[in-house]
Amino acid sequence: MSGCVTVAGLGPGDPDLTAPAVVRALAEAEDLVGYIPYVARVPDKKGQRRHASDNRVELDRAQHALTLAEEGRKVCLVSSGDPGVFAMAAAVFEALESGPDAWRALKITVLPGISAMQAAAARLGAPLGHDFCALSLSDNLKPWETVEKRLRAAAGAGFVLSLYNPASKARPWQLGRALEILRAALPDTTPVIFATAVTDGREHIDIETLATADPARADMRTLVMIGTAETRLIPRPDGQPWVYTPRRASAA
Amino acid sequence: MSGCVTVAGLGPGDPDLTAPAVVRALAEAEDLVGYIPYVARVPDKKGQRRHASDNRVELDRAQHALTLAEEGRKVCLVSSGDPGVFAMAAAVFEALESGPDAWRALKITVLPGISAMQAAAARLGAPLGHDFCALSLSDNLKPWETVEKRLRAAAGAGFVLSLYNPASKARPWQLGRALEILRAALPDTTPVIFATAVTDGREHIDIETLATADPARADMRTLVMIGTAETRLIPRPDGQPWVYTPRRASAA
Repeated sequence: MSGCVTVAGLGPGDPDLTAPAVVRALAEAEDLVGYIPYVARVPDKKGQRRHASDNRVELDRAQHALTLAEEGRKVCLVSSGDPGVFAMAAAVFEALESGPDAWRALKITVLPGISAMQAAAARLGAPLGHDFCALSLSDNLKPWETVEKRLRAAAGAGFVLSLYNPASKARPWQLGRALEILRAALPDTTPVIFATAVTDGREHIDIETLATADPARADMRTLVMIGTAETRLIPRPDGQPWVYTPRRASAA
Repeated sequence: MSGCVTVAGLGPGDPDLTAPAVVRALAEAEDLVGYIPYVARVPDKKGQRRHASDNRVELDRAQHALTLAEEGRKVCLVSSGDPGVFAMAAAVFEALESGPDAWRALKITVLPGISAMQAAAARLGAPLGHDFCALSLSDNLKPWETVEKRLRAAAGAGFVLSLYNPASKARPWQLGRALEILRAALPDTTPVIFATAVTDGREHIDIETLATADPARADMRTLVMIGTAETRLIPRPDGQPWVYTPRRASAA
């Protein structure tokens, strides 16, 4: 029997948002590979080998999964959210392209999941409402000038922005600088949302504006969403206001 | 008992990609509201009322769901894909904002789903790989100049582009014009993907380039994805090449 790799998205945290196709792939795998906290979200199964690795070794992890599959193992590589959105799928294909020819004949399947911006949007109402961009604020793999250029382009053209990887211990200033850039392009009243650990039990959501947003609110588990000039709040008798971006847009 | 509205995402087509939370909401609803083919995807349930409506009446449909909830009914409003991504969630909050005050006290829950670009990306490899934009080509609710401005901004800044609503009988020329604009901003070799009806049994995926892409390949059920100058193809011994966008980006 030949090996295979399934790159599976666990979704944002709540198991009720994980696709049945992913649950089955996890149950059928002989080897689970992934970042420590994501592997920890998968129920133990007798006889299944677990290979949990530290953060920031995505390429090593992808190569490990492909090597196991080459040896004939049935491997599931787990990602939080959607593996295709700032997660493991791109690393797998980078490893595949630079790896041995034999890897190209392996069966590889990517199973999508609910990404953080979708879980946050659902809690808030419909902030993505119309055209939007998803952008990683990490400058580990691209020059910071590229991030700035993309922020200006997206905000200037009227896209809602979802910022992934807004902050970490090693990247403390990037979100503050991003907010400065956005303040130059958008009204001070533009909604800014800090959505942390959505659906995983430690969920915390703050609705701010560009004028009030404090970058210190974000950590590694935060998705930051920036509305457009047209994004609106609807007050509720109890609870946070709804946030939505109308489908109708005037000239940008 | 007071009524409620759950806005639920069925995902791209394959029931194995529908979240358990959505399956439960569908089973518990007293009234199902939605566009005819989406309501048809939900298994019949005795005693459950079904209100299927035609396309392009999103606001009427949202008002209908809220009215039923105000009458005390437990309503599920179904969307294909993710209701928060070019689907029903924004229409619900537009209706809520302009509707009677009583609606603001209704319990409303949005349940996300796998959107077409995620299903297409998973089949292809990892084309979204890094920063990306999602843009509707419909000019029903925004001026066409806004669409053009966003296409130029996104392509010029190095975002992968997912184009929703690329074509319909009433909008036959928009995709052709969009491709012209993109040809001026990106290399001729940039991958262009036509992903139609992904995971629903009639799936068809074409991988073209900006030089070869024929807009006539797209219909209402097609998601068109445009890579960046860095998007790559990996040939496979059998089957279509993998398509991925590396996480590492040079200066845009």
